[in-house]
Amino acid sequence: MPSTKITINSNGSMKVQGDYEIVDKEGNSYDLGGREIVGICRCGLSQNKPFCDGSHSGKFEHEAIAFALPPKKTV
Amino acid sequence: MPSTKITINSNGSMKVQGDYEIVDKEGNSYDLGGREIVGICRCGLSQNKPFCDGSHSGKFEHEAIAFALPPKKTV
Repeated sequence: MPSTKITINSNGSMKVQGDYEIVDKEGNSYDLGGREIVGICRCGLSQNKPFCDGSHSGKFEHEAIAFALPPKKTV
Repeated sequence: MPSTKITINSNGSMKVQGDYEIVDKEGNSYDLGGREIVGICRCGLSQNKPFCDGSHSGKFEHEAIAFALPPKKTV
């Protein structure tokens, strides 16, 4: 079982939990302030990106239902 | 060192790599088709959400620089 779980919420954020780090492009880590679970913005509207601040409410629609990506090309 | 790394790209997606699963609210896993690394949409514009399809290009601005969240309230 994977050690990190990312849950895609419908019409909202994604929840991250487990054994993970969040870094910027320079490789510097976001300090999560002791949180084990964080919500990451999926709608682009948060004023606290990459974290969710609830701004999606009523403004973002995406019914998240698991599906399969096409197989990775291995050429 | 955490087993999953999430990298927040400026003006774009977030890259996920390591030991993780992506699930919907029902707990069903997205089948990543053999990919070890995936890009997740941060702007809300992708037609393949939760995955990035490049739709952010020129339409989403967020300079991602690591910062510290306030300490988690422990009351």
